[in-house]
Amino acid sequence: MWDPYVKDCPTRALLDRIGDKWTVLVVGTLAGGPLRFSEIARRVDGVSQKMLTQTLRALEADGLVVRTQYPQIPPRVEYELTAVGHTLRDPLRALEEWAKEYMPQVLEHREAVAVR
Amino acid sequence: MWDPYVKDCPTRALLDRIGDKWTVLVVGTLAGGPLRFSEIARRVDGVSQKMLTQTLRALEADGLVVRTQYPQIPPRVEYELTAVGHTLRDPLRALEEWAKEYMPQVLEHREAVAVR
Repeated sequence: MWDPYVKDCPTRALLDRIGDKWTVLVVGTLAGGPLRFSEIARRVDGVSQKMLTQTLRALEADGLVVRTQYPQIPPRVEYELTAVGHTLRDPLRALEEWAKEYMPQVLEHREAVAVR
Repeated sequence: MWDPYVKDCPTRALLDRIGDKWTVLVVGTLAGGPLRFSEIARRVDGVSQKMLTQTLRALEADGLVVRTQYPQIPPRVEYELTAVGHTLRDPLRALEEWAKEYMPQVLEHREAVAVR
């Protein structure tokens, strides 16, 4: 029934969202437990405030991350993976691991092509 | 050593490439064996000629796909996964499977948020 090879199937847009590099890194960061915005920003080195906000909002909209505001002064806001968000952890970690494992071969190929 | 959480590590850009929805679908299509451009375009419903060309060139540049031109009339050109390209199949299939499995829950959540 669901089929991302079919143009208008919503799984195609969902694929695009979950495979996004910021999504991979934010979900990876939240795998260890709830964090504040500033903590996520520090761990995902170089992410802009705008990109992190967009990524967290998209994850919230899809029910993969929940944002909790604690009524204290100063207010504390934390982000954490939902149960569904946790199921995304393994497939995204596999992407991360692939990138780390095959980076040398990919670089070697790029260099070989460049000197050709 | 390689760490996509670090800003300038090349694994971050590589993650971005492999998680791209067109990459996921093209690699998935080529998993069954070599195909011509027009065959890939037909199976990845709705992909534009431009996007498919870009995706195949990026995969070629990274050594994940090889393009073979057969010297015949009319010339025949085929694309196929390299050995490294094949190693990408499982992680990308896991993303595809995740999207299909959790699409109902994601849609349900989006609707619940919309009526709030």
